[in-house]
Amino acid sequence: MRLRNNPKANDILAAHDDIVILDGKQYRGKWNELFGNSNPIYIEIGMGKGDFIIENALRYPNINYIGIEKFPSVMVGAIKKIDQLEKIPSNLKLLKEDAILLTEVFGKDEVNRIHLNFSDPWPKKRHTKRRLTSPAFLDVYQNILIDNGELILKTDNRLLFEYSLVSFQNYGLHFEDVCLDLHHSEGYEDNIQTEYERKFSPFGPIYQVKTTFKGVNKNG
Amino acid sequence: MRLRNNPKANDILAAHDDIVILDGKQYRGKWNELFGNSNPIYIEIGMGKGDFIIENALRYPNINYIGIEKFPSVMVGAIKKIDQLEKIPSNLKLLKEDAILLTEVFGKDEVNRIHLNFSDPWPKKRHTKRRLTSPAFLDVYQNILIDNGELILKTDNRLLFEYSLVSFQNYGLHFEDVCLDLHHSEGYEDNIQTEYERKFSPFGPIYQVKTTFKGVNKNG
Repeated sequence: MRLRNNPKANDILAAHDDIVILDGKQYRGKWNELFGNSNPIYIEIGMGKGDFIIENALRYPNINYIGIEKFPSVMVGAIKKIDQLEKIPSNLKLLKEDAILLTEVFGKDEVNRIHLNFSDPWPKKRHTKRRLTSPAFLDVYQNILIDNGELILKTDNRLLFEYSLVSFQNYGLHFEDVCLDLHHSEGYEDNIQTEYERKFSPFGPIYQVKTTFKGVNKNG
Repeated sequence: MRLRNNPKANDILAAHDDIVILDGKQYRGKWNELFGNSNPIYIEIGMGKGDFIIENALRYPNINYIGIEKFPSVMVGAIKKIDQLEKIPSNLKLLKEDAILLTEVFGKDEVNRIHLNFSDPWPKKRHTKRRLTSPAFLDVYQNILIDNGELILKTDNRLLFEYSLVSFQNYGLHFEDVCLDLHHSEGYEDNIQTEYERKFSPFGPIYQVKTTFKGVNKNG
């Protein structure tokens, strides 16, 4: 996403401490306490303007959602949308954090599902390690996901998707389902679209792969 | 491929015993003797009218090619094309055989690469087991391929490709490369097209996955 800097972004985040979490480390191992229940925790890494995570939180009240975004200027877009709701959903939090640091924020097996939606493709070969589906990030996801917890990637970027299929297989992830045209396939009618997806899906297919770390050895 | 029966097909095959092999079992473990050299053996399962395997044989004289087809009426199309060549390539044979029986025709580690091109998608769920990328066929391929031998699937059928990615991963195959639009990607300029591919590629993407059985336990 092209980033327009918002000099007031940090102030806006700080003013919304009922939903925005700036220091996630304090909740490591205690997210269920924060939510006040023992429901599953689904996170979206790189939530952008938040359409996906907000609609999920409204549709599935018995799941706790955490939208993660490292750029305050981007998170402001999600905050504005939440401000327009009648009531802030109690099962939704926004976390400002860098994906590579998520083991400092979530304990082992604390997360039930990870969504990656339209992640930055970092198309240049020398930037491969920045892709959210590269091995160093998979190490992080494996550490915070429960056994059989799902990692779901949705993107319209062909090169990122091709790379990710190979990266996931090479890491040992188990493929539950692959869809190469999400908007023209049966069985995906419950797909919740991101704002980017609504805008760009007419121009080409949306790809999705659903995986688990089933069978991948945990690092201990 | 829609099959038009040719009542003379079996006669035509029998009359071309310089290139057509009707009883492959006699060469099990001895294909290199038949070719008269120790070059690698690449096979195409379901060669259809043979464009792909014939062009490969002409382009790469130091590889031995075997085009496999179970329907005599289809194989006749390949024979006609070979008859038009100035000279029958010495590195090309056509084998009439059913894919599921290939362990009777090839010894362990006798094949260096398997090509599946635009295989019948068998779209109905109850026909899943007939797909050439289903587990029973993978058992066969594993037995005849050398370690690190490649299994390459190319198709325009989205459902077959989605199924195959999951089937390959679940079987434990190693992904070397995935391409979701072969005709519009860099690095695939040496792609040899099938006749079907020439005809249908304008209407949608051609998918390809290159795998090996690296790391899959051999059955013994």
